[in-house]
Amino acid sequence: MFITVEGGEGVGKSTNIDYLQDYLRNHGVELVLTREPGGTALAEQVRELLVQQREEKFDPLAELLLIFAARAQHIAEVIEPALGAGHWVLCDRFTDATYAYQSGGRGLDPDLVRRMETLVQGDLRPDFTLLFDAPVEVGMERARNRGSLDRFELEEIQFFERVRQTYLRLARESSGRFRVIDASQSLECVREKLHTVSTELLDCWSVRHQ
Amino acid sequence: MFITVEGGEGVGKSTNIDYLQDYLRNHGVELVLTREPGGTALAEQVRELLVQQREEKFDPLAELLLIFAARAQHIAEVIEPALGAGHWVLCDRFTDATYAYQSGGRGLDPDLVRRMETLVQGDLRPDFTLLFDAPVEVGMERARNRGSLDRFELEEIQFFERVRQTYLRLARESSGRFRVIDASQSLECVREKLHTVSTELLDCWSVRHQ
Ligand SMILES: Nc1ncnc2c1ncn2[C@@H]1O[C@H](COP(=O)(O)OP(=O)(O)OP(=O)(O)O)[C@@H](O)[C@H]1O
Ligand SMILES: Nc1ncnc2c1ncn2[C@@H]1O[C@H](COP(=O)(O)OP(=O)(O)OP(=O)(O)O)[C@@H](O)[C@H]1O
Ligand SMILES: [Mg+2]
Ligand SMILES: [Mg+2]
Repeated sequence: MFITVEGGEGVGKSTNIDYLQDYLRNHGVELVLTREPGGTALAEQVRELLVQQREEKFDPLAELLLIFAARAQHIAEVIEPALGAGHWVLCDRFTDATYAYQSGGRGLDPDLVRRMETLVQGDLRPDFTLLFDAPVEVGMERARNRGSLDRFELEEIQFFERVRQTYLRLARESSGRFRVIDASQSLECVREKLHTVSTELLDCWSVRHQ
Repeated sequence: MFITVEGGEGVGKSTNIDYLQDYLRNHGVELVLTREPGGTALAEQVRELLVQQREEKFDPLAELLLIFAARAQHIAEVIEPALGAGHWVLCDRFTDATYAYQSGGRGLDPDLVRRMETLVQGDLRPDFTLLFDAPVEVGMERARNRGSLDRFELEEIQFFERVRQTYLRLARESSGRFRVIDASQSLECVREKLHTVSTELLDCWSVRHQ
């Protein structure tokens, strides 16, 4: 199973993914935890180029291609070998984030993202995607409290509003794959919801392997 | 005019491009000298990722996408503004190198390179391309004398043989655009040939601007 976790800045992806991986491992799942952009030494170097604050105006197409370059490396080196060995892959952000940020946020043609997705992923798509959703201000506030901001976190509020709306649209369009979790609630409430979703994932998995 | 300079490792591209730029500037040409991968702060950082020696096996598709990411940034920030202002652009390597190294050398489908070329460049193509050609050993020997080797320079001899043959095939296929210069000769002989080509470029330019 290939599971991705998505959502805007500071909504609680990393916090909850830690909980999720423990839960799944305790239920006998062999799991590889990884993230994008990143997940390999080279791809993490590309991530660093992406998040660094810089004087130079970043060309949106260059940004898109860097993201897919890191993704190609990550897939070849981590994701496909892990799935091939029968492990689960739990990934903090994947291509839905590219639709949300580079197309929704930056305004790139979604068809461009689609072409790159096909070129780099072939037919590799997540089996399930957990979308942590919260009003932009909630996530921004949490991210701000955490420390210094990167190149993305410095964007204007309208940018993040477009990101959020794109995520929600993707979830409506692929409702079979997405599970939307209200991340504006307390951590206890979020965990309860996460617990329900985890049980569903494990059920789905055991059905597939009967 | 958009002029690119191509050729394998150590054949003398950088040496001769310096000569060429002086010659053209002395003849009244406003010229931007640049190189690939690189040419902007961000694109030079990507170049650094490409040439660094690393433990990790570099996925060929990831390499291709990094090169085109750097190219997209370089075009948006340097090449198009310069051409738009009526300047010449003289570029040490461009997309022919991607066909030669990533397709010829690494074995990627040339159609993949073509698709990325269209996506990133639209109809931007060099007006002239100077190909410095020499037997692989000649260039390798010159590069070795120059100091420590990068990730590309450590490839096996067959890799560079494929690069050379791909360059020569491209030159045959686009003979109107290419000028092939025998770079195995002495620097004086190469300069003489370069002088002839420069005169031709200036003639072509003045005809276009009559
Ligand atoms: N439901 C919640 N209620 C209150 N605080 C939360 C909640 N979930 C996470 N947090 C806190 O918000 C901050 C951001 O959480 P976290 O780093 O998990 O978010 P993220 O989505 O991974 O952020 P990023 O987009 O930067 O990766 C952390 O300090 C975390 O403890
Ligand atoms: N025709 C020539 N005869 C002898 N030596 C030469 C000739 N042309 C260049 N050289 C020497 O060969 C070395 C490599 O030249 P140069 O750096 O210009 O090659 P290059 O094609 O730019 O290499 P790279 O592919 O690494 O960028 C330099 O030391 C240069 O002085
Ligand atoms: Mg996080
Ligand atoms: Mg050089």
